[in-house]
Parts: sequence; C-alpha cells; structure tokens
Amino acid sequence: VRVVLHPRHPRGVADAFRAAPEIELVEPAPDEVAAAMDGSAILVTHAWEPSFLTPSLRWVQSVSAGVDQFPLEQLTTAGVTLTSARGVHAPQVAEHAFALLLSLTRGIGVAMRDVTRKEWRPRMAEELTGRTLAVIGLGTIGEEIARRASAWGLDVIGVKANPAGYAGHARMVAGPERVVDICRQADIVVCVVPATPSTMGLVGKDALAALGAGWLINVGRGGVVDEEALIDALDNGGLRGAGLDVFATEPLPATSPLWDHPRVVITPHTAGFSPRYGERLLEVFRDNLDGYQGRGPWSTRVR
Amino acid sequence: VRVVLHPRHPRGVADAFRAAPEIELVEPAPDEVAAAMDGSAILVTHAWEPSFLTPSLRWVQSVSAGVDQFPLEQLTTAGVTLTSARGVHAPQVAEHAFALLLSLTRGIGVAMRDVTRKEWRPRMAEELTGRTLAVIGLGTIGEEIARRASAWGLDVIGVKANPAGYAGHARMVAGPERVVDICRQADIVVCVVPATPSTMGLVGKDALAALGAGWLINVGRGGVVDEEALIDALDNGGLRGAGLDVFATEPLPATSPLWDHPRVVITPHTAGFSPRYGERLLEVFRDNLDGYQGRGPWSTRVR
Repeated sequence: VRVVLHPRHPRGVADAFRAAPEIELVEPAPDEVAAAMDGSAILVTHAWEPSFLTPSLRWVQSVSAGVDQFPLEQLTTAGVTLTSARGVHAPQVAEHAFALLLSLTRGIGVAMRDVTRKEWRPRMAEELTGRTLAVIGLGTIGEEIARRASAWGLDVIGVKANPAGYAGHARMVAGPERVVDICRQADIVVCVVPATPSTMGLVGKDALAALGAGWLINVGRGGVVDEEALIDALDNGGLRGAGLDVFATEPLPATSPLWDHPRVVITPHTAGFSPRYGERLLEVFRDNLDGYQGRGPWSTRVR
Repeated sequence: VRVVLHPRHPRGVADAFRAAPEIELVEPAPDEVAAAMDGSAILVTHAWEPSFLTPSLRWVQSVSAGVDQFPLEQLTTAGVTLTSARGVHAPQVAEHAFALLLSLTRGIGVAMRDVTRKEWRPRMAEELTGRTLAVIGLGTIGEEIARRASAWGLDVIGVKANPAGYAGHARMVAGPERVVDICRQADIVVCVVPATPSTMGLVGKDALAALGAGWLINVGRGGVVDEEALIDALDNGGLRGAGLDVFATEPLPATSPLWDHPRVVITPHTAGFSPRYGERLLEVFRDNLDGYQGRGPWSTRVR
C-alpha cells in the first residue's frame, strides 16, 4: 500500500516503515505533504494542516498517542478514519516514571549534583516496597506503570476519567472528582494525564496538600500539575521530591526555581523516547491496516 | 533477654531494639563494649574485636549481611553461634540497582549534569523491556533483583558460587568460572558479589569486553569490578554506561576519572540505606531468638 509519511516524526519511524515490504513509502519534504496527498489515501503524521484533507484521504495514522491536534468532526464528516499510536509509548514512559521516582527515593538526583562538585556525601535513602502509589490517568501508559508497581510490592490506586467497570492493575480507582482524596491516600503520585481543558491544573494546591510528605512524578503534560503550587509544596508543604519530565513552558525557562531545587529531578521531555518507537508504531499501523483492508477490526480507531 | 548493642550501627537499629518489649538493651560506649560483654550472652554488632569473646558469649547477631569480619573458627571452637543479617538489605539494594540502571538508560545522570548548568538537552533514551540482565551473585539480594527484573519483562541469567540445584528467578545460572560467557550473553550486568579473595577483579577486562555495548551496575563491593578495566571499557570498549555505588577506594578519590565521566552515575555507598533497616534486623533477630531459646530453628545461622 502507498503510505505518505509526514517528515516530522520520532527517530526510528522512517527506518521501520521503509523496511516494511508491504508499504510503498512516500516521504515528502515539509512543504510538499499536501501535494503528496493528492491521490493518496493513507497519511502517517504527528502534525495536521487543513490542506492534508484531500478527496482521496481515507485514513490518518497518528504518530502520537494524543490526537487533540486533529479536527475530529471534520475527519468523521469526510469519511476519514483516525487511529492513534496508543500503546507505542507505554514501556518507555513506565520505565521513565520509575527512573524519576527511584532517582528521588534513592538519592540519585542529589548525588549527581554532588558528583559535579566531586563531593562524596552519603544521605539517607528510602524504600518503595509497601508504599501506596497513585496513578493519575489509568490509560494504556498508566496501566503499565500500575502493573510494574504491583509486581514490585507497591499498593496501587488511581484516577481514571471513567472508572466504571475498571478491570486493571490498581486495587482501587476513582473518578477525577476524587483526585484530592486519592492523593491523600498516596505516598507517591504519578501523573500521566493527557492535556485537555478539564485536566489543566488537576494536580493543584489541594491535591499536593493532600499528598503531603510524598513524592510527585509528572510524565504526562506540564499544565496538569500547577507549578506554582508545586514549588510551594516543596518549600513549605513538606513534599519530599518531584520528578518532572514535562513543564508548563518548554524548554523550562532559566528563571524557573525548579532548576536549582535539590529535591527536584528534571528530564527534558524525553519519557517517550525509545529506539523501539518505530517498530512499535509499525506494529500498530499493521494491526490497523487489517481494519483498513477489511480483514479485521481497527486496533486503535479514534473516529 | 539481655542484648548488648555495639554503638556503631545503621540508623534505626537502636530505635527498633529499644522498642522491643522482650529485649533488655545495653548500649555501651565504643570503648566499653568488652566490659558490657562480661556476663552477657548476646551481642548485636557490625564490628569485631577479640575482647568481645567473653566466657559468657553465646550468640553474635551480625548487623551486616557479610560476616568476613568475624573469626569463624574461633567462634565455633568457643561454642558461639554467629547469625548474619541476610535479607535485611534485599529490597533497598534491589531498588538502588534499578535506580542506577534506569538513571543510565533513561538519561537521568546526564540530564542532572545538564540541570546544574540549566541546560535543556533532549537525548535519546533506552528501554529495558526484552533485554538480558545478568546478576553476578545470585544470593538473597541478587534474587530480589532477578525477581524484579523478571516481573518487568527482562530475561534474567546469572552467576552463583554453587549453581547446582538452583531454583530461583533466573532462567539460567552458571558458576563463577563462566562469568565471561554470562557477560557475553547480557545487555546489563549487575554485580552484587561480596568481597572475598576469589571475587576480587571477577568483573575485569575479559568480562567487560564480553559485555561490550552494555551497561554495568555495581552494588556489591568495589574491588570485584576492575576500575582500570572499567574506565578503559567506557572510553575505548563501547561500554554504554556504569552505575556505581561502591569503589576500590572509598570515598572515591578526587583524582578518579569516574567523577567527570558523562556515562557514569555515582552514589556514595548508599545502596543498603533504608529507614526500615532497624525493623527488619529486629525481625531477623527475633527469628534467630527462637533458635537461641530452643523454640525453633535458627534463621540465618552461619556457624
């Protein structure tokens, strides 16, 4: 099949799709995507522009798990199927969440600040075993975090937009309206919520006060955690540490007090990075190709 | 029972033993331990001095998992039972090993070096899922690392002094004479071997060459990994990173090139630290007390 690949995509994607024998890959330059779509039915892309919606377009495979950049209604009206990259990020983001968490509890962050000054300063470290970890956002990635935490002897609870009928790895799940209550029961809060108008500031002053002397990890979207409230919780609220991959403004401005905070570990929005991204996206694409070609169900259909 | 506690011990030990209702705790000053042992049968200690061996001594509970500091033959001859603290370190050292490993694969170490300069520099990161992890030293701690790695989807192999009849979490185990072969099959080598004459330099030039483009973690003892060979492997052998909690000389000398190496993560011998150390040592002590009082078997008897 002929597939147009938008030129902006994570490393490994083009290699994986080029190597797929059933795919005739078209790789236009940034300003030639619309032209390449003339007569083409399938587009693999992270970005969206109105000119991509040619009469021949039938299927958009998103390169990202979130799909808020796409005009859902308009695609539906035009008879275009949209599929997400759900599942492609789960293993690496789960590992990244634990990397940030363990860097706080085992003192890697503060040790590395010491290391740059060649200072040998043993400090008390903590244990995760037996602690309660709350996953805010029990989607595909959140479940992978919950699964790994359970296997390591943590008690897992969480928040999910639609908790009814939940059958995942968390012992207890509540809706977003109970986020403060869930944070109160947790030693560790891992935030992996997508950015929507209703999730902005979801983990704010009240949730952080409820968490108290715990640890906060954010591998979702920056705006979901209120940064001003976070800094206040670190300085005055007893919060023991924060591991952050995402920020309200990225790159994190030089003026942010987070850079210098000894109990903060920072990575530059790399939680989703993986050399296996391409192979997994191709897997998702192939599953969806069955739906496109009428051989089976779509695997990650959004609309 | 009357128990003499040597004054040098990890944080939390004295509190836990003081709170135990069945224990009458004696806490001598550093130079008064021998005097306190006059007429006492039970000593809880990390350190050993010949003067501790009074005629009344019947049982030494070690505060450490390793017991090479004790005169085994002499204790046996005197009819003194020695019990180790085996199991007390397993959860925190396992978490620490993963903290070091994930700090390398998810780029926390290098990101924290950037953070001290307020630099936002996304770099490729790696995944553990599906990789082969070799545990050199499948004892109590090594098994805990193997268990957690298996639960996270890694393939686990390892080395054990006596591999015959092995029934643990590793898929395949070999004796120390096959350490190079085991390293050849591994993407990740986690070293958790105690220091004995036969383990010094066990992970040397050949083992590191066999590991190749992998990651090395050492949470055992410094001398087990040949540091000169390690630095050469990092600079010229393609080794992707090293996470080190222990060193040939501690504190690590300011002249060591390890401090400045961008692919090295260092912690100052803190893998065994845990606020739960005291409660777990008390648990081990109580299990052994059953043996001492003839109510059941000794739990961690060495001699």
